[in-house]
Amino acid sequence: MAATLGAIVEALGGQGIGDAGLAIERPAPLDTAGPRDIAFVAQARYASRIASTRAGVLIVPPALQAQAQARGACIVADDAYLYFARLTQWWRARHDPRPPARIHPTAVIDPAAVMGDGVDVGPCAVIEAGARVGDGARIGAHCVIGRDARVGVGTVLHPRVTLGERCHIGARGIVHSGAVIGADGFGFAPHQGRWIKIEQLGAVRIGDDVEIGANTCIDRGALDDTVIEDGVKLDNLVQIGHNVRVGAHTAMAGNAGVAGSADIGAHCTVGGGAIVLGHLKLADGVHVSAASVVTRSLLQPGQYTGMFPIDDNAAWEKNAASLKQLNRLRERLKAVEQALAQAQPNKKPDDA
Amino acid sequence: MAATLGAIVEALGGQGIGDAGLAIERPAPLDTAGPRDIAFVAQARYASRIASTRAGVLIVPPALQAQAQARGACIVADDAYLYFARLTQWWRARHDPRPPARIHPTAVIDPAAVMGDGVDVGPCAVIEAGARVGDGARIGAHCVIGRDARVGVGTVLHPRVTLGERCHIGARGIVHSGAVIGADGFGFAPHQGRWIKIEQLGAVRIGDDVEIGANTCIDRGALDDTVIEDGVKLDNLVQIGHNVRVGAHTAMAGNAGVAGSADIGAHCTVGGGAIVLGHLKLADGVHVSAASVVTRSLLQPGQYTGMFPIDDNAAWEKNAASLKQLNRLRERLKAVEQALAQAQPNKKPDDA
Amino acid sequence: MAATLGAIVEALGGQGIGDAGLAIERPAPLDTAGPRDIAFVAQARYASRIASTRAGVLIVPPALQAQAQARGACIVADDAYLYFARLTQWWRARHDPRPPARIHPTAVIDPAAVMGDGVDVGPCAVIEAGARVGDGARIGAHCVIGRDARVGVGTVLHPRVTLGERCHIGARGIVHSGAVIGADGFGFAPHQGRWIKIEQLGAVRIGDDVEIGANTCIDRGALDDTVIEDGVKLDNLVQIGHNVRVGAHTAMAGNAGVAGSADIGAHCTVGGGAIVLGHLKLADGVHVSAASVVTRSLLQPGQYTGMFPIDDNAAWEKNAASLKQLNRLRERLKAVEQALAQAQPNKKPDDA
Repeated sequence: MAATLGAIVEALGGQGIGDAGLAIERPAPLDTAGPRDIAFVAQARYASRIASTRAGVLIVPPALQAQAQARGACIVADDAYLYFARLTQWWRARHDPRPPARIHPTAVIDPAAVMGDGVDVGPCAVIEAGARVGDGARIGAHCVIGRDARVGVGTVLHPRVTLGERCHIGARGIVHSGAVIGADGFGFAPHQGRWIKIEQLGAVRIGDDVEIGANTCIDRGALDDTVIEDGVKLDNLVQIGHNVRVGAHTAMAGNAGVAGSADIGAHCTVGGGAIVLGHLKLADGVHVSAASVVTRSLLQPGQYTGMFPIDDNAAWEKNAASLKQLNRLRERLKAVEQALAQAQPNKKPDDA
Repeated sequence: MAATLGAIVEALGGQGIGDAGLAIERPAPLDTAGPRDIAFVAQARYASRIASTRAGVLIVPPALQAQAQARGACIVADDAYLYFARLTQWWRARHDPRPPARIHPTAVIDPAAVMGDGVDVGPCAVIEAGARVGDGARIGAHCVIGRDARVGVGTVLHPRVTLGERCHIGARGIVHSGAVIGADGFGFAPHQGRWIKIEQLGAVRIGDDVEIGANTCIDRGALDDTVIEDGVKLDNLVQIGHNVRVGAHTAMAGNAGVAGSADIGAHCTVGGGAIVLGHLKLADGVHVSAASVVTRSLLQPGQYTGMFPIDDNAAWEKNAASLKQLNRLRERLKAVEQALAQAQPNKKPDDA
Repeated sequence: MAATLGAIVEALGGQGIGDAGLAIERPAPLDTAGPRDIAFVAQARYASRIASTRAGVLIVPPALQAQAQARGACIVADDAYLYFARLTQWWRARHDPRPPARIHPTAVIDPAAVMGDGVDVGPCAVIEAGARVGDGARIGAHCVIGRDARVGVGTVLHPRVTLGERCHIGARGIVHSGAVIGADGFGFAPHQGRWIKIEQLGAVRIGDDVEIGANTCIDRGALDDTVIEDGVKLDNLVQIGHNVRVGAHTAMAGNAGVAGSADIGAHCTVGGGAIVLGHLKLADGVHVSAASVVTRSLLQPGQYTGMFPIDDNAAWEKNAASLKQLNRLRERLKAVEQALAQAQPNKKPDDA
């Protein structure tokens, strides 16, 4: 499980400095890397850690070359973090190649499903009539691909993914275990104190190069489809309601939730545990901080936040109690200002 | 996949206005509906959209009849939204009928399970000894029905639902993929810095007409049962702790969580990401806003909210910093008021 | 399904007071217990409930013995809650013994997996090459144990657990349905508006006596492993990001989320729905309240909270509106203080 410095540079480019035959055992974090490991320092603000790491090889940007070279072998790359990402991909492919594709004999594939070339299907996976699975796709154990669903070329469904009927996912996607794509959206009409189900007649359409985390849910649309555009990355336990659109290359962290019909732009990020309410619009380039709740459309790009700052419990209790009187405090302040203004007639209160 | 205006009115009632032979291809959202689609406008405040929609047929309440009729075909119904809900149900049943029930040969059904008439069991589903499945129920692929569990008449478990031993769900329920009903509640006694497990000896009892979302969890009770009453609707990724009661016709949106032994009334709603702490009581008709945290019993019906308003990050940072001094600000305001009162002896501060 | 008072005391110790032959049907909550049930009162503050319960037998600490004895049979134990926990364990083992271990014929076990003695494997479970399953472990229906994964002695995986390749769980663990251990961490390098995947080359290492809730996710590390130490208890729907460490005997309630590389100490508790941001350090003995967001390292033990207090919606709206002007209010207060100080030159404002 080793590679040489030379082999890495030959495969991934960059400028290799040091013994090309140097054996490297694994990519490692800067802190715990040892003399046979390769690590990276991508930003100048971490430059001070170059001197202290024990890593055998460092990947650095040109600005840090002198420092890195002074301590030993390195690879200089314009974007050291990107180089490192590509190194992990190369490492995985080299050291942990996928086993050859096979259809496991316990898989249950409807004769009316259309299977591409070189598709791998794991034990007990179920592929229903009319489903189409693209070339080189991998359908893990216990996956269920519903009627007329579609899996794009090279997409990997880890064990136990549900892709509901008529739902599509594009090429080169990755879906982690437990994800449910195409459950019914949450739609009911109230009637005499009861909820009357609105059948969810739409589906889910997912673009190319999308990654979906473990136990994440993407509901099918009520009438039109729920849409996840190309390059979107969703972490684990994310909830996407019906008829949501998630724009291209947007990323959402774990436990985030998006309510029905929200329209989220491209290149957005949504932090862990954040909630976006329904029917709102987020422009391209909106960044929602963790645990924040989006209660109105955000039409300008930028970073948005709303969370109560954590404090020791005693301090929080006092401030929270005062918070429940905040509007009253504001009125009292206004009264004070007016009283002062009367005493000093050339000034006046400035409350809007 | 088409229906005529006349066929819809014949099946669902209402007053059809226009050519009864008009062909309709699908129910559609008002915004995207075309001339062969049917859409609805339920509320007078959306009346302005009647003129602009391209929908071939509009479902409207009597108050909007004149406007709708002026532009073309329509169906007049007292509750247009309810009519629309029933239309989706009729449409689904008509255009996407369920395949005939079958027991898939890979299903693993214990001989001591009791299966009703016309039950459908999908591939690799497991039904253990003593379980009872009602007539016409559908058990999806990879479901696990534990020992002595019960599934009511006509209930649908989508693929990959776990119903733990001794847990019951009533008639006409719908459970989406990945839901786990009857995992152990989270109960431990602390002892010398360790957690000693309290075995969870209760079960889960779910009423009729309940819908449970994808990857939602309902824990079994510690001693008595966790109870979900008739008509409850739970969205995806909802957590219901042990010994909770959820009253009839209450609905909870995605990512909501209810801690152990909370007692939630009937006809409540809990917004997405909201948390209800343990051992609290919510009266009938309590509505908890999204992302709010219920930290005390709410004994009066009404809407309750607690969330930090989102803002651009710079503004949030300033306000959050001030918030950590809020109690101090309140004291300073009081001091100012007292100073003013001394200066103006006929007034006095009003801090409670 | 009954036990006598004498049998309980013989098995679990404590001082039995009353007829040793008294038949007990079940452990029950204090409120609903009947004359053939056993319940507990662990704390003096609940002493008033001793008189009103109908329980046939009460477990009490020595301080409550006199009161309990005055009303009937009881068991006196130093820690009544701990005694009760052990009673539930004894009850479960006695009345609901595990069926004998078997390998279900539909299980798919690679010949290169190493199976201990007395291992139980449920229907359709998949155990891949190189996996090692310890003596007496139970692998539920539809579980997937990846290549080279390890399950410790006596550990129970409920139906439908995924343990990814190279991930380890120690002895006597319990993992509930739907949990996903070892999905990829959420790691990407940004490049020209797209996300480039960082392959997650680490794994997950879980200690002994760990319990993991339904649909909880623990991601594999990027380079090093994600680590869950001995005795940790995670509730349902918890998200643990890559490279997190959760220290021994820490417990987290439902819907909690921990972002990547957070380092959480031992004997901590994290409340339901709380979020811990990435790369932070929590000392041993830190307790995070429900729904609070940890945005900075907490290096001192103690209770920490940050949540907006819930209120009726109208009050919340007013206070939330004022909150968005809080920093401005603070400035106005300072101006008022300065104006007063000028009027009363022997005093001065105290804003830091």
